[in-house]
Amino acid sequence: MFRNQYDTDVTTWSPAGRLFQVEYAMEAVKQGSAAIGLRSATHVVLATVNKAASELSSHQKKVFKMDDHIGVAIAGLTADGRVLSRFLRSECINHAFVYESPLPVSRLVVHLADKAQVCTQRSWKRPYGVGLLVAGLDETGAHLYYNCPSGNYFEYQAFAIGSRSQAAKTYLERRFEAFNNYPREELIKDALSAIKETLQGEKLTSAICTVAVVGVGEPFHVIDQKTIQEVIDSMEIREEAAADQGTMQEEDKSSEAAPMDI
Amino acid sequence: MFRNQYDTDVTTWSPAGRLFQVEYAMEAVKQGSAAIGLRSATHVVLATVNKAASELSSHQKKVFKMDDHIGVAIAGLTADGRVLSRFLRSECINHAFVYESPLPVSRLVVHLADKAQVCTQRSWKRPYGVGLLVAGLDETGAHLYYNCPSGNYFEYQAFAIGSRSQAAKTYLERRFEAFNNYPREELIKDALSAIKETLQGEKLTSAICTVAVVGVGEPFHVIDQKTIQEVIDSMEIREEAAADQGTMQEEDKSSEAAPMDI
Amino acid sequence: MFRNQYDTDVTTWSPAGRLFQVEYAMEAVKQGSAAIGLRSATHVVLATVNKAASELSSHQKKVFKMDDHIGVAIAGLTADGRVLSRFLRSECINHAFVYESPLPVSRLVVHLADKAQVCTQRSWKRPYGVGLLVAGLDETGAHLYYNCPSGNYFEYQAFAIGSRSQAAKTYLERRFEAFNNYPREELIKDALSAIKETLQGEKLTSAICTVAVVGVGEPFHVIDQKTIQEVIDSMEIREEAAADQGTMQEEDKSSEAAPMDI
Amino acid sequence: MFRNQYDTDVTTWSPAGRLFQVEYAMEAVKQGSAAIGLRSATHVVLATVNKAASELSSHQKKVFKMDDHIGVAIAGLTADGRVLSRFLRSECINHAFVYESPLPVSRLVVHLADKAQVCTQRSWKRPYGVGLLVAGLDETGAHLYYNCPSGNYFEYQAFAIGSRSQAAKTYLERRFEAFNNYPREELIKDALSAIKETLQGEKLTSAICTVAVVGVGEPFHVIDQKTIQEVIDSMEIREEAAADQGTMQEEDKSSEAAPMDI
Amino acid sequence: MFRNQYDTDVTTWSPAGRLFQVEYAMEAVKQGSAAIGLRSATHVVLATVNKAASELSSHQKKVFKMDDHIGVAIAGLTADGRVLSRFLRSECINHAFVYESPLPVSRLVVHLADKAQVCTQRSWKRPYGVGLLVAGLDETGAHLYYNCPSGNYFEYQAFAIGSRSQAAKTYLERRFEAFNNYPREELIKDALSAIKETLQGEKLTSAICTVAVVGVGEPFHVIDQKTIQEVIDSMEIREEAAADQGTMQEEDKSSEAAPMDI
Amino acid sequence: MFRNQYDTDVTTWSPAGRLFQVEYAMEAVKQGSAAIGLRSATHVVLATVNKAASELSSHQKKVFKMDDHIGVAIAGLTADGRVLSRFLRSECINHAFVYESPLPVSRLVVHLADKAQVCTQRSWKRPYGVGLLVAGLDETGAHLYYNCPSGNYFEYQAFAIGSRSQAAKTYLERRFEAFNNYPREELIKDALSAIKETLQGEKLTSAICTVAVVGVGEPFHVIDQKTIQEVIDSMEIREEAAADQGTMQEEDKSSEAAPMDI
Amino acid sequence: MFRNQYDTDVTTWSPAGRLFQVEYAMEAVKQGSAAIGLRSATHVVLATVNKAASELSSHQKKVFKMDDHIGVAIAGLTADGRVLSRFLRSECINHAFVYESPLPVSRLVVHLADKAQVCTQRSWKRPYGVGLLVAGLDETGAHLYYNCPSGNYFEYQAFAIGSRSQAAKTYLERRFEAFNNYPREELIKDALSAIKETLQGEKLTSAICTVAVVGVGEPFHVIDQKTIQEVIDSMEIREEAAADQGTMQEEDKSSEAAPMDI
Repeated sequence: MFRNQYDTDVTTWSPAGRLFQVEYAMEAVKQGSAAIGLRSATHVVLATVNKAASELSSHQKKVFKMDDHIGVAIAGLTADGRVLSRFLRSECINHAFVYESPLPVSRLVVHLADKAQVCTQRSWKRPYGVGLLVAGLDETGAHLYYNCPSGNYFEYQAFAIGSRSQAAKTYLERRFEAFNNYPREELIKDALSAIKETLQGEKLTSAICTVAVVGVGEPFHVIDQKTIQEVIDSMEIREEAAADQGTMQEEDKSSEAAPMDI
Repeated sequence: MFRNQYDTDVTTWSPAGRLFQVEYAMEAVKQGSAAIGLRSATHVVLATVNKAASELSSHQKKVFKMDDHIGVAIAGLTADGRVLSRFLRSECINHAFVYESPLPVSRLVVHLADKAQVCTQRSWKRPYGVGLLVAGLDETGAHLYYNCPSGNYFEYQAFAIGSRSQAAKTYLERRFEAFNNYPREELIKDALSAIKETLQGEKLTSAICTVAVVGVGEPFHVIDQKTIQEVIDSMEIREEAAADQGTMQEEDKSSEAAPMDI
Repeated sequence: MFRNQYDTDVTTWSPAGRLFQVEYAMEAVKQGSAAIGLRSATHVVLATVNKAASELSSHQKKVFKMDDHIGVAIAGLTADGRVLSRFLRSECINHAFVYESPLPVSRLVVHLADKAQVCTQRSWKRPYGVGLLVAGLDETGAHLYYNCPSGNYFEYQAFAIGSRSQAAKTYLERRFEAFNNYPREELIKDALSAIKETLQGEKLTSAICTVAVVGVGEPFHVIDQKTIQEVIDSMEIREEAAADQGTMQEEDKSSEAAPMDI
Repeated sequence: MFRNQYDTDVTTWSPAGRLFQVEYAMEAVKQGSAAIGLRSATHVVLATVNKAASELSSHQKKVFKMDDHIGVAIAGLTADGRVLSRFLRSECINHAFVYESPLPVSRLVVHLADKAQVCTQRSWKRPYGVGLLVAGLDETGAHLYYNCPSGNYFEYQAFAIGSRSQAAKTYLERRFEAFNNYPREELIKDALSAIKETLQGEKLTSAICTVAVVGVGEPFHVIDQKTIQEVIDSMEIREEAAADQGTMQEEDKSSEAAPMDI
Repeated sequence: MFRNQYDTDVTTWSPAGRLFQVEYAMEAVKQGSAAIGLRSATHVVLATVNKAASELSSHQKKVFKMDDHIGVAIAGLTADGRVLSRFLRSECINHAFVYESPLPVSRLVVHLADKAQVCTQRSWKRPYGVGLLVAGLDETGAHLYYNCPSGNYFEYQAFAIGSRSQAAKTYLERRFEAFNNYPREELIKDALSAIKETLQGEKLTSAICTVAVVGVGEPFHVIDQKTIQEVIDSMEIREEAAADQGTMQEEDKSSEAAPMDI
Repeated sequence: MFRNQYDTDVTTWSPAGRLFQVEYAMEAVKQGSAAIGLRSATHVVLATVNKAASELSSHQKKVFKMDDHIGVAIAGLTADGRVLSRFLRSECINHAFVYESPLPVSRLVVHLADKAQVCTQRSWKRPYGVGLLVAGLDETGAHLYYNCPSGNYFEYQAFAIGSRSQAAKTYLERRFEAFNNYPREELIKDALSAIKETLQGEKLTSAICTVAVVGVGEPFHVIDQKTIQEVIDSMEIREEAAADQGTMQEEDKSSEAAPMDI
Repeated sequence: MFRNQYDTDVTTWSPAGRLFQVEYAMEAVKQGSAAIGLRSATHVVLATVNKAASELSSHQKKVFKMDDHIGVAIAGLTADGRVLSRFLRSECINHAFVYESPLPVSRLVVHLADKAQVCTQRSWKRPYGVGLLVAGLDETGAHLYYNCPSGNYFEYQAFAIGSRSQAAKTYLERRFEAFNNYPREELIKDALSAIKETLQGEKLTSAICTVAVVGVGEPFHVIDQKTIQEVIDSMEIREEAAADQGTMQEEDKSSEAAPMDI
């Protein structure tokens, strides 16, 4: 990425027709810890890595419930993510109050994207520095969206964002074709396996990840740690083989992470 | 294009009387994936290339229905395009409510152009980074317009915008004189052929393009994938010859595309 | 024109007492395609060159009707011109509604000039990049004005603006003294001859120009192409001699024209 | 005049306590064509040079009637002058409506100066680039004021502003002591002689100047060209001698005049 | 930390996706005198170092009561901290008034974080330069949060912020696992020991620290100096050993402290 | 006075705690022509030098009546002074209307100083470039104040501001102790003598100075020229001796005076 | 103090977490003439040095009464101090009107500090350049506070601010422990002694200082000059010894004082 005089103001176009400040904000998403989403026809699973900033602290919440049928996982500036979550919750509540029916997932995603777009076209603001995986279930089935700081959104079968998410994406690309027919439990297992890919050999335990699910007959909720640990234990044999590879690369990258987005 | 101190602020004229920031925004249109429009006396066909950002995701929607008689295809910043689409839809609804008749296409196009012009004359905004092909049918017949980030619009018989649109334009220029009397099906075939020109040897399938049509007795709608695939199959013999040429140039250009406008 | 640190902000005076940004905006007028106006005691004729941006497109409209008795032709940024036209139309309608009589041409011209002046004295705006020839008929006779981006206006017997307008101006200066007593048809012929001067040997056809007229007993209207072609045909002998000269200079200039003002 | 970093912003003082942007705006007055005013005890005469921008155009109006008893002549940016004239007219009308008596000249001049001062103390504006000679008659007699872009005003017996006004000022300084008792006709003759001084040998005709008068029993009005020509003819013998001197200096200066203030 | 052109404006992203101005504001927290918090299941203890700016003055208050069940300790710009405290108090009062129940601690912390986030996304503001340890007791037990200038917050078992807080953090990390079951008195002792760590050999007396506690059956209140001195006296034997180490490092750092945040 | 990057913005402090833009505005006062004030127990006299900008013009008014009991003399930007005078007059009128008693002088001076202070603390304004000597009589006796662009004011027995005011100040310092018991006529004589000191040998006549007085039983008024001339004539013998000294220094300084503040 | 690109804007953090513009504003306090405050259990005494700007002028008021029970002394920009005093007075009056009891001193101090803090967090303002010693008596006894441009405040037993205040602070530090039990007269004597320390050998007279007192049974008032002179006379023997030391240092500093804060 080359740098020039067009990259300090969000309302300045580069000669090649790019908005560098928007692209830089998208880099902030890569600095956050990883978040992963998977979808079958009936369920969506979100999973995040929870690294506490210090031994003394709890980890920061990265998965938020919006409504019974919608939840999000974030990567990037947590403060920006929290502010956007509050906006989303209020959209869900208002819709439910006025129409007495849950807000369709795709419509919520558009509202969120429009809010992000505004911040790319006003000189006194900055683009949000956070990416959101939106998981939801409505009359048209289960959905997984990714909302980007640029004001774009994409529907996914499965996706991974945040630091070292490339390994998880590679894992998901090998397996996503079968996801649509997966039962709930298999989705959770693959979510944990994808999370494991981003850990680079670090041991996966229920303490360093959060998993949430929404699906038919099951409102959006975070799965309790004990259940997750049982799933991890049942996956152990598979893990032993995988853990040997890819242990040490990128270890230093994590220390580069900007202090505010862990 | 030479560069100087006059090109970082949308309200600064260059000594030669140019607004560089507006021209740079027009470059953003060229970075988006291609969009094509064709018009006969009774029908307008819009077609776009749909490249998904990854295997895991669906492609981004590039064709939007505004009203029963109007639709648009976009190239450039999708987020900007979506925001403008919402504006257009609300214009259509308001007109229909007040006058109980559909909004004439040319009037909608002017509203859109005026909204774009404002962003070229305020120091705290930026010009929109998206081009829109507007297809519509009203009492004066079928129309195809192109709305540009500069706040200009042009009526076309056929047009192509976005990355590698030059090949499509060349194809259309060879054939456009006959379009006015084309039946609906021929228009769709030529739209697909033009799309094919932008693919540079990549195989055209119904999965990587969207085709929409509006015409006499036919409200604006996206044609389903199966029908498109059948048309493509029927065109195969012609394609085989064309596919051999132009395969590999510009392949790398696509990787240069700014990540937010695919 | 020398350049310095005083020429990037419209509210900054140069030490010599000039506003460079206003002068630069006046350059934008010269980049647009040519527009010509002529006036007799009873009629005003406007004529513009219509170069379509591509074979596939229609040309952009450069002549606008404001009211039955007033019309304008523009050169420069078409989007700015369109926005100003809308303002003018609304002034005409409001006056007619309140006073039940047509708005005098000179008063409209002052309103327009005042609107342009404001944009030369606010730091967050830019001067309009368009020149307007205003043709009108009121109780004081036929009038032709030129409104400039600086907020000035001038009354003319005949005038030409836009790219290569110098040749047309030279032509008009040789002949303008007789215009006041010209019949309507002669005015149209001289308008076409002046347009021809700006074409530099390119063949004049009704397809590449628009001619409009307003006069006693004749509301402002664009003359249909067929009539114009007949006039051109009747002028052919005179043309043959003129066409040989001045064919090739400045050909490349047209390709330099900023893409947004054709 | 030395230049430095304190001269691009109207709200920045130089270390020596000067406002360079205000001084630069005063230069704009010198770029306009000349305007002259003379006053006797009972009459004020304003005269301006009218150079049309081209043979094809009429000249720009430089003398404006504000009310029956007040008129102005301007030099500098005509657009700024016109906007200020409109302000003055509205002040006159409002006063007449509320108090049923004409607005005293000195009070109008203060309103105008206050409006100009505001533009020297706001960072988002620029000082007006126009000087105004205000001629008026009220209960205290005939008055001639000069209003400057700095927000200052001065009362004069006679004054000249605009390009090459120095020659006219020298002429007036030699003769002004007698003006107070001049009859109306003598004032007009001296106004024309002063105008002639600014022409540098160019022949003075009624076509290139405007003369206006206000006085006891005579509302402000522009004197018709025929009358002026008769006065010029009667002055011819005196002129012949004067015309030989000062012909060619400063000729080039006129071509330097910024295009927007002729 | 490398420096570049992206670090003077809070709304400018660096190419790597960081907001330097927000990170710099986080440095201000490190410049303030130390603040420490510890939590058991039933009590939270806050402790701060109170260095008076001079012998003549009292020290600045660093511990503020928000409500009976919530209090904060600050490090960084005291003025910013005071303004945020006022905001928090008003939130507590409003909640109590409307709902007739105390405001849950976690909700107050979110309000505070949202207020901080806004200052990271407006070009005319600056991020707050203060960190807050929020101690509170509600229906879900005792809580200790840290609110950061970035708009983030974290829940902690124990934490230390401000200058030389690293030594205290190290102390707390060795011991925090037992804190949950500590009685109130033990928490206070460990708070004082942690404070002592930050003093670098300086003698701990009740005069240079403030200790506050909130817990079951005990509203938030600052413990009186006499009681604190008694605790310190009872700890003396343990202290004698500890005082020998770590005496002299970082001594000079304290003199670098920006004058406004002591 | 050293110059640096802290001196172009009125809201920027220098590292030494100075506001250079305010100090520069105070320089503007020194560029205006001189103004002098003297006070006895019962009377205040103001005197100013009136140099007309040219032979043709009257001089600019530098002494303004605010109310029957208050008047001001200004030095610096006359336009700024006039705007402030209007503000003062309106304060006087409002007070008289509401309280049916004249506004105390000290209160008016505070209002004026507060208005000036605001302009030193807003980034989009500039400090006023004018100093005001305020002379008034109220229940507490006669008063003379000096209001400075910085928003400060001082009470004086006698003071001189403007160009070459140092000589007048030296004169006044030698004599001020007796002023309190001076009769009105002696004050006027000393005012004229002080004015004479600023003229540097130029002959003092009633035409180049204005003298105003306010005192017990005597509302603020400008003394007519004839009376002043008689006083000057009666002072002639004293003058002859003084005129020989100090004739030629600083002569050129007057030509440096910024054109807008004479 | 090192200088860099982070010190021209009040909303820009330096990489080390400092706000240089706020620190620079604190330097302005040091440029003002000295102000001193002392407090016993029942009385507070404020004293300031009054240097008149010239022999001709009275000195500027540096001590202001806010209410019967509160007064302030200022050092730094007098204009800023006066504006803040007006704010304080209005706070006192409003509180007294609403609650029919005097405003507690500590609350007034917080209001003042909050007003100052706002000016450190808005890009279009500047921090106030003035320090205030606030003396008051309320139900909790006598209080002395120092309010700083940074928005901080501190309670003091005794304090000195302004130019050469270091000598006074040293004097006060030697003696402050006894102040709490001092009778009113002893406080005044020590205030005068501290003032004397800042004079560097210049003779202390009642003419160059102001002393004010507030205490039990004694509303805030400035002590008349005669009384002060008597106290000074009674102190003479002690003074003679002290006057010999510290005479000449820093003499030149006073001439560096920015002209607007004497």
